[in-house]
Amino acid sequence: MSSKQLGAKVSRTDLTMSDGRTIRYYDSAGQSRSAKDSRPVEEQPGIGELRLDPLVNEWVVMAAHRQGRVFLPPKELCPLCPTTGDLLTEIPDSNYEVVVFDNKNPSLRSPVGDWALPDLIGPGTDTGSAAGKCEVVCFTDNHGGSFKDLSERQVRTLLEAWRDRTEELSKVSYIRHIAPFENRGEEVGVTLAHPHSQIYAYSYIPPRVEKMLSVAKKYKESSGKVLFDDVVAREIRDQERIIAKNEHWVAFVPYAARYSFEIHVAPLSPVADLAELSEAQSDAFPSIALEVTKRLDGVFNIPMAYIATWHQAPVREGRDLLRLHWQITSVRRAPGKLKYLAGSESTMGAFIMDLKPEQSAKQMREVQL
Amino acid sequence: MSSKQLGAKVSRTDLTMSDGRTIRYYDSAGQSRSAKDSRPVEEQPGIGELRLDPLVNEWVVMAAHRQGRVFLPPKELCPLCPTTGDLLTEIPDSNYEVVVFDNKNPSLRSPVGDWALPDLIGPGTDTGSAAGKCEVVCFTDNHGGSFKDLSERQVRTLLEAWRDRTEELSKVSYIRHIAPFENRGEEVGVTLAHPHSQIYAYSYIPPRVEKMLSVAKKYKESSGKVLFDDVVAREIRDQERIIAKNEHWVAFVPYAARYSFEIHVAPLSPVADLAELSEAQSDAFPSIALEVTKRLDGVFNIPMAYIATWHQAPVREGRDLLRLHWQITSVRRAPGKLKYLAGSESTMGAFIMDLKPEQSAKQMREVQL
Repeated sequence: MSSKQLGAKVSRTDLTMSDGRTIRYYDSAGQSRSAKDSRPVEEQPGIGELRLDPLVNEWVVMAAHRQGRVFLPPKELCPLCPTTGDLLTEIPDSNYEVVVFDNKNPSLRSPVGDWALPDLIGPGTDTGSAAGKCEVVCFTDNHGGSFKDLSERQVRTLLEAWRDRTEELSKVSYIRHIAPFENRGEEVGVTLAHPHSQIYAYSYIPPRVEKMLSVAKKYKESSGKVLFDDVVAREIRDQERIIAKNEHWVAFVPYAARYSFEIHVAPLSPVADLAELSEAQSDAFPSIALEVTKRLDGVFNIPMAYIATWHQAPVREGRDLLRLHWQITSVRRAPGKLKYLAGSESTMGAFIMDLKPEQSAKQMREVQL
Repeated sequence: MSSKQLGAKVSRTDLTMSDGRTIRYYDSAGQSRSAKDSRPVEEQPGIGELRLDPLVNEWVVMAAHRQGRVFLPPKELCPLCPTTGDLLTEIPDSNYEVVVFDNKNPSLRSPVGDWALPDLIGPGTDTGSAAGKCEVVCFTDNHGGSFKDLSERQVRTLLEAWRDRTEELSKVSYIRHIAPFENRGEEVGVTLAHPHSQIYAYSYIPPRVEKMLSVAKKYKESSGKVLFDDVVAREIRDQERIIAKNEHWVAFVPYAARYSFEIHVAPLSPVADLAELSEAQSDAFPSIALEVTKRLDGVFNIPMAYIATWHQAPVREGRDLLRLHWQITSVRRAPGKLKYLAGSESTMGAFIMDLKPEQSAKQMREVQL
């Protein structure tokens, strides 16, 4: 067991789970954590494989060992609830504020020994082991809860946990990019109903980040400026797609959104990643985060399925090219209608949007909170 | 009305619909087509907008006028059934083999006057009108039918229609890329249950094609060879992911598939697009196409939701870099379980595969037909 003090009066206590994984409790009121994981040790799955898709030169993670993972278990068997009575879960304590632990069925995991990916193009020896880290971030012990129903204090603790994980994972030699995200709703494929976030720490630059890097690099070469800063400046100038703003953050539907309800939340003073956020920026995040997620659910008065991801600069490259922002995309386009990635989107990468961003921004602005 | 003779004894008869759109009947037995569209003229939607997503320099189609399109109408109101009695549909005749007509609610349509897209990067004047063509390809008048239940003759006629459309659309000055595809199943978002294919003819190079072009270009520069040819050669050499083969075509699960059930069908003598297929290659397609779609449905003995797309070389560039192939991807990973594009796939572009391609190839090979 070890403990340390983080920002915003959050303390972190590390304990070891019965199979050797670490569970980290993030607490805002100095809680003491010592509950023992008394489950029998289960064998851990092996590491997956990375294969290069030669047609687009992108790595694909082969994680066939995950096919048997728990799939929408009933509440009584939820592995993300705190341990109570006979239900021995992933979290040994009987309550928690925020906990982070390695995913039991990770797509990416620590490699064995020296590790490197070949730098190849074409159908050669295009394989590697799927190195990286997949962590689960539980942010409420209320099974029926939701991010938007957290208190500001809880969001602040969660942000501190994401910050701390980003800092720590950035030090791992084989990690190149870190993406904390939340999938919400069976419509986006959650396999555990208990609200939770995840962190994927990749040993390669994910394809979309690679694209963002190359575009930002060209833009900097031609203009001397950071692309994302100009994008935010344009949204602030245009005004009509902004849905919320405070002293440190602005939330908008991007000019060329791909989903009917897509929100980007960006700090007004740009930073590369969560670890670089100032105390003042961090303290101002909970209010705008709760406001936009409430506005999103308010549009149709139903819980909106969404993916909420932190875009960060990669750990070791392009630190001056990409900026931290929080992107929320909902697959819902109307009550009873979802946006699917069909022929055009899925195979051509050509998105068709069903709603003007100005219109969806207006709808979200007009929600009465 | 006009008629012409195509390959494989297919005749094409063009008629004008009441709102001015053209409907093309493709027939294999010299049928005569003259049924008049007697529906009242409805106002046609305007053209959509293209907006540049500056962060990745990709065009997004804003087609807000499509939000009100028909959504899973009951069989009695199906607009893709032939016209019978009181049901006046998109197809005026009382039967058809294959028909192609402009989508009533197209994402892309003919531009007015001179048309060009700005060549920009960053948040500038990044807009254009959504020029292009969206066509509907109905390949069976049987509402409850399915591609895999067609006869070889019907698939041959359908292929001739796709070929013909590719040839004709290639001559349109503002068209840069043509993608015939079929979305099958509500799980991939079909809004009309009647089985049908679509053709999207883009006025820009779709992002995924752009990526394929740039990778194939690098590969050619370094090796002097066409990437896709080497990919097919590798699959034939490896053997273990091949699921069907005939004199002119091979079908395989690609080495780095992104979906548990993904099939690529490629001609053994490479061509750039459908228009370049020889008569012998075309004649050999129906048998392998029907075999692989039957094998796909046979794995779990249920109709598999899928997206089946023809990848072609762009119309006016990279003709010697990209090759024709037919890609089928199913979102089903197990009975009762779908593959969703969640945090990692959707926001990072990093795909996680749940099944080894060798395993899914074996499952499909072992289906008893």
